[in-house]
Amino acid sequence: MNAILYNGSDDKRFVPEESQMRIEAFTIDGLPLVGEGDDLAGMILDRVDFENYDILAIASTVVSKVEGRVREISEITPSDEAQRIAQKLDEDPRFVEAVLDECEEVLIEAPFMLVRRRGGHVCVSAGIDRSNIEEGKLLMLPKNPSQTAAAIRSRIFEETGKKVTVLITDTNGRAFRVGQTGIAIGASGMRPLLNWVGRFDLFGNVLTVTNEAIIDEIAGFANLLMGEGDGGTPAVVIRGLRVFEDVDVFSDIIRDENEDVIIAALRQMKSRDT
Amino acid sequence: MNAILYNGSDDKRFVPEESQMRIEAFTIDGLPLVGEGDDLAGMILDRVDFENYDILAIASTVVSKVEGRVREISEITPSDEAQRIAQKLDEDPRFVEAVLDECEEVLIEAPFMLVRRRGGHVCVSAGIDRSNIEEGKLLMLPKNPSQTAAAIRSRIFEETGKKVTVLITDTNGRAFRVGQTGIAIGASGMRPLLNWVGRFDLFGNVLTVTNEAIIDEIAGFANLLMGEGDGGTPAVVIRGLRVFEDVDVFSDIIRDENEDVIIAALRQMKSRDT
Repeated sequence: MNAILYNGSDDKRFVPEESQMRIEAFTIDGLPLVGEGDDLAGMILDRVDFENYDILAIASTVVSKVEGRVREISEITPSDEAQRIAQKLDEDPRFVEAVLDECEEVLIEAPFMLVRRRGGHVCVSAGIDRSNIEEGKLLMLPKNPSQTAAAIRSRIFEETGKKVTVLITDTNGRAFRVGQTGIAIGASGMRPLLNWVGRFDLFGNVLTVTNEAIIDEIAGFANLLMGEGDGGTPAVVIRGLRVFEDVDVFSDIIRDENEDVIIAALRQMKSRDT
Repeated sequence: MNAILYNGSDDKRFVPEESQMRIEAFTIDGLPLVGEGDDLAGMILDRVDFENYDILAIASTVVSKVEGRVREISEITPSDEAQRIAQKLDEDPRFVEAVLDECEEVLIEAPFMLVRRRGGHVCVSAGIDRSNIEEGKLLMLPKNPSQTAAAIRSRIFEETGKKVTVLITDTNGRAFRVGQTGIAIGASGMRPLLNWVGRFDLFGNVLTVTNEAIIDEIAGFANLLMGEGDGGTPAVVIRGLRVFEDVDVFSDIIRDENEDVIIAALRQMKSRDT
């Protein structure tokens, strides 16, 4: 039994070794299509009876829509830089301009744009979505997803008195492996990393796994339950897993750009290619 | 409601839109410490009443132990190559030798060894574990985890008649983000990728997310439930998620080494540094 996790409903942090961990997860169905200014937290509260330590995962797309993070492609004027990269990609330069506007650094220009966003999140095309939005429009990632998560967490606490963890998720590619998985791009009410330092293995040795990115393990599973597209559900509750803490420390999960060996390699490659 | 997933117990592949998806996950507690030749499948069968379409996730460490994938550090003679890399890493050259023995290519030598294993799995130190094993010994990843998963799946079907998906999981670092997450290193009884091509988004556009690596979204969550070290549980069941198919196609998830831009960048960096 994993002592730092939790499977009950009262306020204890640890559970006895003999108890089995049981987790429940469910989709929040029936949410309407949302638009700018809609009360997303209210819509969720209408549909879920929260319990203490529930984890609420929300797809970034709905947060972006509520926040009006939409651009009209026709209103974008591409820069020279955008024109240059668009040619390499055989892509609409206005789309490339939108990506450049969202990011701090382009790590790979082609065959896809891998960029570092403000705040450090590395993703393809700055996470801009052309699906699940009307044609001719672009949906950007939320401006400050952790702030949004914190606001939703407060609102749930105010209305229900329940301590709930809130994650904002997005679908992200990764190195070396095919396919995309859900990750958290913002959160409130949990530590993203579970630090095993000082704990012992089965033979009394100190553990070498020091940081487990539990937030992304949760976000990935939530993303799977959400699905994609017209059959998807943009919000999921995971119940029975005690990760709640009254903290806002999401940025712990972003590796310092100057300590990342793969960023260093990509920068070298780019400086050689351009 | 995500139409390709499933929340019931009969044989239908699709569920009506109005039904909510509910998932349950639990640890398999009370497994003894295992050793070479132990009947792992039997131990699990003694403790779980499987249902059709259950997903059984097993930590690679216990599979490795049952398969005797253990080396005595004292019996390893390091090569010149191992000596050279060990010096850069300030590491035991015998450990480096064990890593080299397990891998096809070293992508990064220092500050940590990132290698490509036979079969294409990219990981740090070839996934060799010095935790959860007696001091002076190394635990290698299972030889052929998908084969093991297939054998366990067959055994469960023979004894119970239940169609179960089996995953073997390991804990893996990743680019750009701090912390490690669980991934699948082998599987039987599911497709690792869910292909959304041809499906439509909420506005009738064709989806751009084509491949969701659902196997790693499941493996990550299972890894979280397992925990690490002396309080950990090496096996987990996820119930209510219909991903079962009678296939053995795990290798779909490994990206072709020659199509991976990040591998290309790491090779360039290495050829410049050495």
